[in-house]
Amino acid sequence: MDLTRAASAAADDADPLAAFRARFTGADDDRPDRLLYLDGNSLGRLPVDTPAAITRVVEQEWGRGLVGSWDTWVEQSRRIGDLLADGVLGARPGEVLVGDSTSVDLYKLVVAAADARPGRDVLVCCADDFPTDRYVTAGVAAARGMTVREVAAHIDAGLDLDVLAGALDERVAVVVLSQVAYRSGALVDIAAVTRLARNAGALVVWDLSHGAGAVPADLTAAGADLAVGCTYKYLNGGPGAPAFLYVRRELQPQLRQPIWGWFGQRDQFAMGAAYDPAEGVDRFAVGTPPVLAMAAVEVGARLTAEAGVERLAEKGRRLTDLVVGLADAWPAGHGVTVASPRDAGRRGSHVSLGHPGAWQLTQALIDRGVVPDFRTPDRLRLGPAPLYTRFVDVWDAMDRLRALLEDGSWQQYPTERSRVT
Amino acid sequence: MDLTRAASAAADDADPLAAFRARFTGADDDRPDRLLYLDGNSLGRLPVDTPAAITRVVEQEWGRGLVGSWDTWVEQSRRIGDLLADGVLGARPGEVLVGDSTSVDLYKLVVAAADARPGRDVLVCCADDFPTDRYVTAGVAAARGMTVREVAAHIDAGLDLDVLAGALDERVAVVVLSQVAYRSGALVDIAAVTRLARNAGALVVWDLSHGAGAVPADLTAAGADLAVGCTYKYLNGGPGAPAFLYVRRELQPQLRQPIWGWFGQRDQFAMGAAYDPAEGVDRFAVGTPPVLAMAAVEVGARLTAEAGVERLAEKGRRLTDLVVGLADAWPAGHGVTVASPRDAGRRGSHVSLGHPGAWQLTQALIDRGVVPDFRTPDRLRLGPAPLYTRFVDVWDAMDRLRALLEDGSWQQYPTERSRVT
Repeated sequence: MDLTRAASAAADDADPLAAFRARFTGADDDRPDRLLYLDGNSLGRLPVDTPAAITRVVEQEWGRGLVGSWDTWVEQSRRIGDLLADGVLGARPGEVLVGDSTSVDLYKLVVAAADARPGRDVLVCCADDFPTDRYVTAGVAAARGMTVREVAAHIDAGLDLDVLAGALDERVAVVVLSQVAYRSGALVDIAAVTRLARNAGALVVWDLSHGAGAVPADLTAAGADLAVGCTYKYLNGGPGAPAFLYVRRELQPQLRQPIWGWFGQRDQFAMGAAYDPAEGVDRFAVGTPPVLAMAAVEVGARLTAEAGVERLAEKGRRLTDLVVGLADAWPAGHGVTVASPRDAGRRGSHVSLGHPGAWQLTQALIDRGVVPDFRTPDRLRLGPAPLYTRFVDVWDAMDRLRALLEDGSWQQYPTERSRVT
Repeated sequence: MDLTRAASAAADDADPLAAFRARFTGADDDRPDRLLYLDGNSLGRLPVDTPAAITRVVEQEWGRGLVGSWDTWVEQSRRIGDLLADGVLGARPGEVLVGDSTSVDLYKLVVAAADARPGRDVLVCCADDFPTDRYVTAGVAAARGMTVREVAAHIDAGLDLDVLAGALDERVAVVVLSQVAYRSGALVDIAAVTRLARNAGALVVWDLSHGAGAVPADLTAAGADLAVGCTYKYLNGGPGAPAFLYVRRELQPQLRQPIWGWFGQRDQFAMGAAYDPAEGVDRFAVGTPPVLAMAAVEVGARLTAEAGVERLAEKGRRLTDLVVGLADAWPAGHGVTVASPRDAGRRGSHVSLGHPGAWQLTQALIDRGVVPDFRTPDRLRLGPAPLYTRFVDVWDAMDRLRALLEDGSWQQYPTERSRVT
């Protein structure tokens, strides 16, 4: 790999996705002192089209159309769901719905899946997955008198499928697993795990949050049954944007989710006496979705679909390869270790660097115009978003990190952590 | 009551809340052919300040501040909650939280309350309450092997407290009840029901959706334990705006909700191994709240608090009295019956009129610039919002309805209902 800045600039010139950069606020700044935002895996940038889309919903649809706009809004969850299904997730129409938070969606699907496996009393999750995955699973288990079997993952290399296979037996009802590990970026093979779980008679609920929009999920091809995912990371749907859920079409009639709200009701506006869940994916809806927030999700989803997830993933692999290559080229790594799989095919679009002063480095980098993410206990996480991050952005960010490591100035920052990272 | 239009115009001139009208888009139109929006109880109007507030969050906080804005956003659920607590609900700081949908919030609190009453196997709800109240209750009961005891309410007069009292015994764990009935507008006395339930050892989860912002809840004074409510009706938070939940401070340490998401975790960003619910009302949070939608809730809540719920309720009583007075003055009511309590002290801020052609009348009124709401089976629901509805708006709307009833033209409209009302 040519690790010169000139090689990165050349890669940008040849980038088939380069034109998308101008469609995100602030992303096409090319001044030397520009902000280098490598946290698109935590909160994606603002698409240029989003303010107008929100303004249209607020001023036209709400302000002028008032309650009459429900003719449009009532289709919104499904419309954006179908857009994600086709353009991002490799799923079919009528399999994806947008509305609640990832945590709420995960809860609904884990309960629905556990109900579909009566007599089984174990839920499996991964000890290194994102807190909500582990906490929601624990909560469902606690309420039902089930046991959680946490499989260990290597903090750098992710989950070993043999370890997972060893945890699957006839007691396991549901496996909750992230496609991309939030800390290491390690990628799990959805098809392989689905086969393993199916052979054991268990259902998998995938959390696609840390990859959706940056790595393909190919849910239909992989045979996946159930999934949820976040839209405010690589899908650029805005802070706290509503999540998506996916239920394979053939499974929908067999499943019921536990929160019986009026948006999940067949013939909702008849307001009938008894709950009678709608056909299809609508039965996984609950209450009135946050229409204004959803408008931003739609813009982000369209941009991702237009760029194409395969192309995004290819660029993501090269961007993260550049991080790894640069860190490896430093003498003794300047004390930094690569805390992610080295094989780009086994990574999502973020990479973690291990360093005992990771929290101090995070603060120092932010002061120097680089936004990384700190992850416990000692991880500096860099998430170049292939839709709008340049190769030279990665190069310059790593150069600012290198300078910090060389001059030791990061050591002046407090070691005590503030509440929000 | 003076039922002339001049008397209504005089009431508007004397209205201490008149200045608020100009703070809602479209509400200060005074052309004779203006839109008469009497559906603020379904979707409140757009506050003039809301677009700028949303634009600030979108363009400044998200677009420029990016992930750093979480320092602000992480407090948003509590900040808006405290605003509602103090300015709208009569609750104390740290008792109200905004974030999920009403249905999800209701689910969380019903499960938490049922868990707090072990050994009891009955949930009570009201047969004439809004679908989500009944469906969520049924879903919780089904999952736990509990029984739902539905108490009947009179379709026009609402719930009789003696009927409710008769349903309360030592088997009842939780009562789910609306403060204002969504169809009749009948108002339930929160303090009286809370006493009844407490005497029976049960907890009440109030649904304040159909009154919040138009009638006082006075939760602390009433001794209420648990409540949820909608912000997109009289609180003008926008379509599908996130709901609020209320948990009395003294009760918080004893309760746990079932959806163990990372926003309910103590020291959330430590991302600890096991779920350990936060102190206080934060433990009732679940996932990342929809920040953009919440920005609109804040504007609506501020406007309501500024106007004052007592003043709003007083005007609401007079506005709905005017509907009742005008309908009563028509010869034989033109076939319309008043399907709401006649005593304004027993009503929220909406009133229903019964008519066999209510659905056809709804369509005919919309064509004539009046937006009412149809409610099954034969109810024309009129919700004048005291923040922005004039007395002459009500007078003119009733006049257009009178003209329709007299000329019979509404009979040309289809009897078959479309999906959205």
